[in-house]
Amino acid sequence: MTNSTKDMLGRVQLTLVDEAKNLFLEKLPETVLETEIITIEEALGRITAEPVISRENLPAHPRSSMDGYALSARDSYGASESMPAYIEITGEVLMGQLPSGLVKKGCCYKIPTGGILPEGADSVVMLEHTVPIDNTLIEVVKSVGEGSNINRPGDDIAIGETALETGTKLRAQELGLLAGLGFAEVNVFRKVKIGILSTGDEIIAHTQKPAPGKIRNINSIAIGARATSRSTKVKDYGIVSDNKEIFLHTVEQAIAGNDIVIFSGGSSVGMRDLGEQVIEQLGPPGVIVHGTALKPGKPVILGMSNTTALIGLPGHPVSALTCFDLFIAPAIEKLSGMRTRLENTPYIEATLTRNINSAAGRRDIVRVSLNKTKEQYLASPVLGKSGSISVLSKADGYFIIEESSQGISEGERVKVTCYNK
Amino acid sequence: MTNSTKDMLGRVQLTLVDEAKNLFLEKLPETVLETEIITIEEALGRITAEPVISRENLPAHPRSSMDGYALSARDSYGASESMPAYIEITGEVLMGQLPSGLVKKGCCYKIPTGGILPEGADSVVMLEHTVPIDNTLIEVVKSVGEGSNINRPGDDIAIGETALETGTKLRAQELGLLAGLGFAEVNVFRKVKIGILSTGDEIIAHTQKPAPGKIRNINSIAIGARATSRSTKVKDYGIVSDNKEIFLHTVEQAIAGNDIVIFSGGSSVGMRDLGEQVIEQLGPPGVIVHGTALKPGKPVILGMSNTTALIGLPGHPVSALTCFDLFIAPAIEKLSGMRTRLENTPYIEATLTRNINSAAGRRDIVRVSLNKTKEQYLASPVLGKSGSISVLSKADGYFIIEESSQGISEGERVKVTCYNK
Repeated sequence: MTNSTKDMLGRVQLTLVDEAKNLFLEKLPETVLETEIITIEEALGRITAEPVISRENLPAHPRSSMDGYALSARDSYGASESMPAYIEITGEVLMGQLPSGLVKKGCCYKIPTGGILPEGADSVVMLEHTVPIDNTLIEVVKSVGEGSNINRPGDDIAIGETALETGTKLRAQELGLLAGLGFAEVNVFRKVKIGILSTGDEIIAHTQKPAPGKIRNINSIAIGARATSRSTKVKDYGIVSDNKEIFLHTVEQAIAGNDIVIFSGGSSVGMRDLGEQVIEQLGPPGVIVHGTALKPGKPVILGMSNTTALIGLPGHPVSALTCFDLFIAPAIEKLSGMRTRLENTPYIEATLTRNINSAAGRRDIVRVSLNKTKEQYLASPVLGKSGSISVLSKADGYFIIEESSQGISEGERVKVTCYNK
Repeated sequence: MTNSTKDMLGRVQLTLVDEAKNLFLEKLPETVLETEIITIEEALGRITAEPVISRENLPAHPRSSMDGYALSARDSYGASESMPAYIEITGEVLMGQLPSGLVKKGCCYKIPTGGILPEGADSVVMLEHTVPIDNTLIEVVKSVGEGSNINRPGDDIAIGETALETGTKLRAQELGLLAGLGFAEVNVFRKVKIGILSTGDEIIAHTQKPAPGKIRNINSIAIGARATSRSTKVKDYGIVSDNKEIFLHTVEQAIAGNDIVIFSGGSSVGMRDLGEQVIEQLGPPGVIVHGTALKPGKPVILGMSNTTALIGLPGHPVSALTCFDLFIAPAIEKLSGMRTRLENTPYIEATLTRNINSAAGRRDIVRVSLNKTKEQYLASPVLGKSGSISVLSKADGYFIIEESSQGISEGERVKVTCYNK
């Protein structure tokens, strides 16, 4: 079923971008089902498939949180600058070693931050609150309570406590935490699998010399790279001719092995119709959205074949990449199993250098280059003739003109989402 | 030579963060020297080592930039709604094919966007400015000038033109551009090589069960992952004891094969001294900065052995990662050869949920978790006891309290740099 119904004059009604995205995303499975156990060394960017529960107390032993002296708090009671307590140094705790012996009444052990509390001591007095008399004696000039400057066993993470929830993206920090808890491996969702094909009789491999009228396949490389940068597993199904049987057959093959199948190209109306027919034939649910109120990217087709997403991208690389960012990136994120995501992407605020008009009811994605002046960033729209690819590398990022706006004026502040990879 | 001189009371003078970074970066080589030629399929995130010069004109042939009719502009002169020019359709240009025949006087070919201009035509009249009479005849209701709605050969990129400058980061867009220009391979700087070792007699491998007082090696995993996410080649030199000979020997080995050598740990004063001694011994220039006015991360050591950067990170993972982000990430960027970088990182603006004090003259990096309300993000500082690792995974990003500030109040807006990987 398609949501791009026609109006009384036979014109296609375009779906609003957010509506299109939501219609598409809600049809997607909650996440990929398969999981795999991998070493933490190879887990960067992956998503946990189950909670990580601590198998031990951290710290395992009571530890000092300060450089100072370990003693019985009782021995410091009443101590002050004018009335110090005199305490004998009878031992020293060394980093990484279990202290030997016992701290007796009126005595203390020297202890570093992180050192294990020796037997007989119940607190640590900070170095700053002591005055050395000689190598064996200190004045304590401030009293401490029992447990002062001590981390108790399990204070950091207790045995049985959840260290990481299901759906956590494993950044350097989380991998460090796993290492600290002694996990050499972690159970993660498998990578989202993406199949890419390029369509059109005029498309040739980028390694070939084009005959007149032919153009090289840009989208398989660009879309493939964009997908790879999001920790997916990409398979290239090559260039497929406009022949419906061959096209259908290749898409069926790709569906069998992937979570998302993307075909691009087919800038001609005939090719677009073919894309729609094939997705419809491979349903249900088939075509979900055909045509969005988006510039660039209007002719995008969003569909599903059973649980595999099927997306037809416009042929022009700028449009194709824009549709990737708006529709496919959130689909990858949903399928990845990530549940700790922020709703918005970080941005750089910048001042627009010229007026940009937009049509009300349409969302415009305006690509800009950023230049820094003394006080601020300037965002200069990257404009190019239709079909131009030289503009591809000119943009640092983009800002959005919402449907409710008819444009943004020179001098207004815009929030620029930066392209990273 | 060290910049952390002592004052009259023997206290170490800490170097300001920006000064420390600049002193360190200016000693680094301009870039790695070696380059390599790789396929564009494997070039995502890499940096071009020479300009990419187009070997052909794009488009190769004059092409229509509109759907319409190709004709001689002369035949449209004077045409208007009230006085249309009648033009005979004598052919059609198909996508991806060289048009056959010649467009004669008073005739036109139907042409799609991107179609090659046929012989005899010098312009295209848009579909919207024509009225079909029958299959062989149209009314042209608006005149066009010579060259109208045409992209000329080389309009997009001309032969000999620079498509990409040296030092360009290859994002999906640039890879698409290379594909479009027929480059199967690209000359890039090799990856920055980073050697990592962990020091301290109390440190054991994360795969081991710690005896009392021992702690698992977190930093090699966390710092290794952070470096990997920046397209570097990381080699792990393991855990090294506090013994100076062994330490020196391992660092020397690491220097021989890397651009940056990082050792972490050694929270004890003795270990820090050892780190400084070893860097000094491996100079010149030796230690550049020892101790910065930074929280967390004060005890960082920045140095060089000939052209290899040598960095001693604090033992605590949060401090170590902070120092990585502030000092090592810019060093990687410089060595990578990237020359098109933005000065600032994107951020999310958020409202601080509690007062945070800072000392004037010190830069504070405050880690926060972000929560979205209806209208805005709230940034809640992630606080943890000294030595705590459970806090590692709690932060979505951080904001900076500059040296000139003594703190930020609840309700103030802060710019949060997000941790991605």
